[in-house]
Amino acid sequence: MQAPSHAPHSSAELVCELCRGFYDLGWASGTGGGISIRDEDGIWIAPSGVQKERIAARDVFLLDAAQLDEARILRRAADPALRISECTPLFFNAYRDRGAGAVLHSHSMWAVLAARLFSPEGGAARFVVQGLEMQKGLRGKGCFERVEIPIIPNTARECELTESMAAAMAAHPDVDAVMVAGHGVYVWGESWVQAKTQAECLDYLFRAVVEAHRLGLPLEGSPA
Amino acid sequence: MQAPSHAPHSSAELVCELCRGFYDLGWASGTGGGISIRDEDGIWIAPSGVQKERIAARDVFLLDAAQLDEARILRRAADPALRISECTPLFFNAYRDRGAGAVLHSHSMWAVLAARLFSPEGGAARFVVQGLEMQKGLRGKGCFERVEIPIIPNTARECELTESMAAAMAAHPDVDAVMVAGHGVYVWGESWVQAKTQAECLDYLFRAVVEAHRLGLPLEGSPA
Amino acid sequence: MQAPSHAPHSSAELVCELCRGFYDLGWASGTGGGISIRDEDGIWIAPSGVQKERIAARDVFLLDAAQLDEARILRRAADPALRISECTPLFFNAYRDRGAGAVLHSHSMWAVLAARLFSPEGGAARFVVQGLEMQKGLRGKGCFERVEIPIIPNTARECELTESMAAAMAAHPDVDAVMVAGHGVYVWGESWVQAKTQAECLDYLFRAVVEAHRLGLPLEGSPA
Amino acid sequence: MQAPSHAPHSSAELVCELCRGFYDLGWASGTGGGISIRDEDGIWIAPSGVQKERIAARDVFLLDAAQLDEARILRRAADPALRISECTPLFFNAYRDRGAGAVLHSHSMWAVLAARLFSPEGGAARFVVQGLEMQKGLRGKGCFERVEIPIIPNTARECELTESMAAAMAAHPDVDAVMVAGHGVYVWGESWVQAKTQAECLDYLFRAVVEAHRLGLPLEGSPA
Repeated sequence: MQAPSHAPHSSAELVCELCRGFYDLGWASGTGGGISIRDEDGIWIAPSGVQKERIAARDVFLLDAAQLDEARILRRAADPALRISECTPLFFNAYRDRGAGAVLHSHSMWAVLAARLFSPEGGAARFVVQGLEMQKGLRGKGCFERVEIPIIPNTARECELTESMAAAMAAHPDVDAVMVAGHGVYVWGESWVQAKTQAECLDYLFRAVVEAHRLGLPLEGSPA
Repeated sequence: MQAPSHAPHSSAELVCELCRGFYDLGWASGTGGGISIRDEDGIWIAPSGVQKERIAARDVFLLDAAQLDEARILRRAADPALRISECTPLFFNAYRDRGAGAVLHSHSMWAVLAARLFSPEGGAARFVVQGLEMQKGLRGKGCFERVEIPIIPNTARECELTESMAAAMAAHPDVDAVMVAGHGVYVWGESWVQAKTQAECLDYLFRAVVEAHRLGLPLEGSPA
Repeated sequence: MQAPSHAPHSSAELVCELCRGFYDLGWASGTGGGISIRDEDGIWIAPSGVQKERIAARDVFLLDAAQLDEARILRRAADPALRISECTPLFFNAYRDRGAGAVLHSHSMWAVLAARLFSPEGGAARFVVQGLEMQKGLRGKGCFERVEIPIIPNTARECELTESMAAAMAAHPDVDAVMVAGHGVYVWGESWVQAKTQAECLDYLFRAVVEAHRLGLPLEGSPA
Repeated sequence: MQAPSHAPHSSAELVCELCRGFYDLGWASGTGGGISIRDEDGIWIAPSGVQKERIAARDVFLLDAAQLDEARILRRAADPALRISECTPLFFNAYRDRGAGAVLHSHSMWAVLAARLFSPEGGAARFVVQGLEMQKGLRGKGCFERVEIPIIPNTARECELTESMAAAMAAHPDVDAVMVAGHGVYVWGESWVQAKTQAECLDYLFRAVVEAHRLGLPLEGSPA
C-alpha cells in the first residue's frame, strides 16, 4: 500500500476532504459516517452530528495518541457548541488493539444490505465472499481466498458497541473491519490510504454479493 | 443538531446552493423539488417551474414571516416573468403549524417507490421502518423504534394538497415529513441543517426498505 | 416554462455545457447523445462521433435555420476533420414539423429498458405511464393523465430513422418525444430549457416504470 | 473515431485526469483499474497500488515503446517507493499484438456481473449482446450484429493472465476487449479516445444485459 502521490495539506484538512468524498459515495449522508486520522500530533476526529460534507478544518478535534484507554482532548473544535464524534471509543478500539493509523465509519447502503443478507434477524453473523479480484485490496488477502467479516448486532447508543466490536476484532485478527447490522461498517488501516482503500474494496464486495444475489447468481461464499 | 461549521453567505444564496445539491441527488430534476428557508428577514422561496440547479440568488422570493396565514411577498424575483413556487402554501403549513426554520420538497425516486410499496393504489397510508441506525437522524427517534411517516394521495394541483398535508401533520406530531403518493416528500426542521439531515435520512430509509423488499428480505416494519 | 435565471454565454458554449451534464447523467457516454439549439443565428449542432463531455465551442457547427428541408452548414467546426452529427436529419424533424427551439438525444439506459418492457421484440409500440407528478413537466400534461410516448424500431444507420420518426411525431402530436428501441430517445421543446426539462421528466418516468416493474408493483398504465 | 476537440496538456497529465474520471465511474476504486497511453515519447503507465484518483503526473512511469517484448523503463515515478503497474504485461499484449495507442483496465461492477451471468463458474466463456445502438461505438460493429467478448478465468497474480489474455485476443480479432471473470475488463484502441469510447460502450452493454436479465427480459444474445 503506497503513499498517495498527491499529498494534502494537513490532517485536519484531510479529514474534511475525505468526508466530502464519502458524502458523494453515499457513505456519510444525514450527518452519519466519518474518518479519524492519527499523525505525529495526535488523533484527529470530526465533531458529532454535523453535516460531514461541510466540516471546516478548525472544527476537527485533536486527541492524545499517547493515551488510548480513554479519549483525552488536546484541541477542541473552534465552534464551542460542537461535541466530539460519538464514534470516538470505537475508533479507539482500532488505534489501541490494532495500532491503526486511521479509522473510517461508513453508513453505506451496501454494507447494510449485505449484513441483512447474512444476518436477517440482525444478530451476530459473518459476511462471506470468495473469488473476487477486489479482495486483493484487503490486507493479506488473495482473490481466491474466503474472506469473512464479522457482523455485530446494533445497539441503542453507538458507544455501547465498544465491547462487542473489540471482541469481534479479537476473533477476526485477519481482517480490518467490523460490520454492524442495520447500521454500517468500521474499517481501519495502518494509514488513511490503506483504511480508505480497504473501505472501497469492502464496499465493492458488499455490493457485488448483493447484486449477484439479486440476479439469482450467488457468488462463492454467498448465503445460499 | 449542530450548526454547520461552514457558513454560507446569505439565505438566498444558500437556497440556490442547496438546490444544486438536490439536483445532483436526483431530488430536483425537471424543475421539481426545492427548499425554503426562514431567517430574520423573512421566508426565502425559489421561483416556480425553473431549473432548480440554475437559480440565481436574485431570483429567490422573500415572504413575510410575520404573516403565515397567507403568503405576502416582500421581494420578488429580479426576473419579472418568474412566479413564486407552487409549493408555497405547503411550505407555510410547516412554518405555521410546526414553527419550522426550513422546509424541503423532494421528488426522490425512492420516496415515490416506497410510497407505492405501502400504498399500491395511491391512497392514504403510512410508510413504516424499524431497526435502522439512520432513524437516529430523525427528531427524537432511536434506531429500534418503529417510525411511521404519513402518505397522502396526490392531487391534480399542488396547492390542493394543503389541507390533507396539514391533517396528516396533525395526526403525526412525532415526525417532520409527509409523503405524497406518486409525487415525493415534504420534510422540515427547526433549521435548514435539520431539514436537510432529516431529508437525507428519510431518503436512505426509503431506499433501504425498497432495496430490502427487492432482495426478498423485508425489514422489520416492511409491508409483508 | 420559464427562462433560466442563470444565462449562459453563447449557444455554442451552452451546447458544450449541456453535453457535459448529459454525460454525467449517463445520457451521452461513448460519444453518444447530444443536443442542438436554435437561436437568432441559426441551429447549433455538435460534431459526430466525439466525446460529448469534451467538445469545444469552436467545434460546434452552425446550420441555416431558414432552410429546414435539408441541412445547410453556415459555419463548420474549427477542426476540419470533424463531421456534423449523424442526428442532424432527426433534429431537423423537430425544427421543421414542430417549430422546436432545441432538440436533445439521449442514450439513457432507462429509455432503453423502458422501451424493452413495452416492446420486447423491438418493434413499434408505445410507452405508457399514468399517475406520477413528474408527468406535469411534459407539455400540457397533468399527473393523472395517461401519457403515451411512441416507440419506433431502430435502424442500421441513424439517418434511416428520419421517416419513421416523422410519422410517429405526426401520430402523437400531444407529446414532444420519440423513443427508439434498443437505442434511446429524442426529445424537443420550444426552448433548450423546455427540451431539457421534458427529457429529465421522461427519464424519471422511464426509470419509475422500470423500477416499479422490478418491485412487482406495476404503475397504472404499465404493461401488465 | 475523431480526436477530441479539447486537447489535454501532456500524456502523463492525461493519464491522471482519466484515472480521476474512471474513479468517478466506479471503474477504479480501491486502487484498482487504470489506463496506459502511447505517444511519441513512449508508453505512459500509472504506478501500482496507488489511489487512482490521486496520481500526480510526475509519478507516471514512461516505458520504451520500441521494445514491446518486455517492459523497459525510461523514466521512473518521482516517488522512489512506487513500482510500476502490475497490469504492464497485459497492457503490452495490446501494444504488441494489436498496435494499440492506449489500453484501459476497469474493475467495473457491470463487467464482473455480466461475466458472472455468462460464466457462473468463472471459467472461459463469451459475453454476448445483440441489438443495441451502443454496439456502434465498438470498432467495426453495427447495432444488429452479434457481439462476442471473450471471458478468461482469473488468476492469483495479475501477470499470470498474460498468456490467456493473448490467446483470447488471437481468437477474437474482431473485438478490442477481454473480460476477466470476477475481476473486470481490458479494453484498448488506436488512441486513448477510442479506448475510452469502447470502454464506455462496453460498460453500457454489460449493464444493459444485466439489467434486462433482472427484469426477466433477456436481450437477444443473452444467456437463456
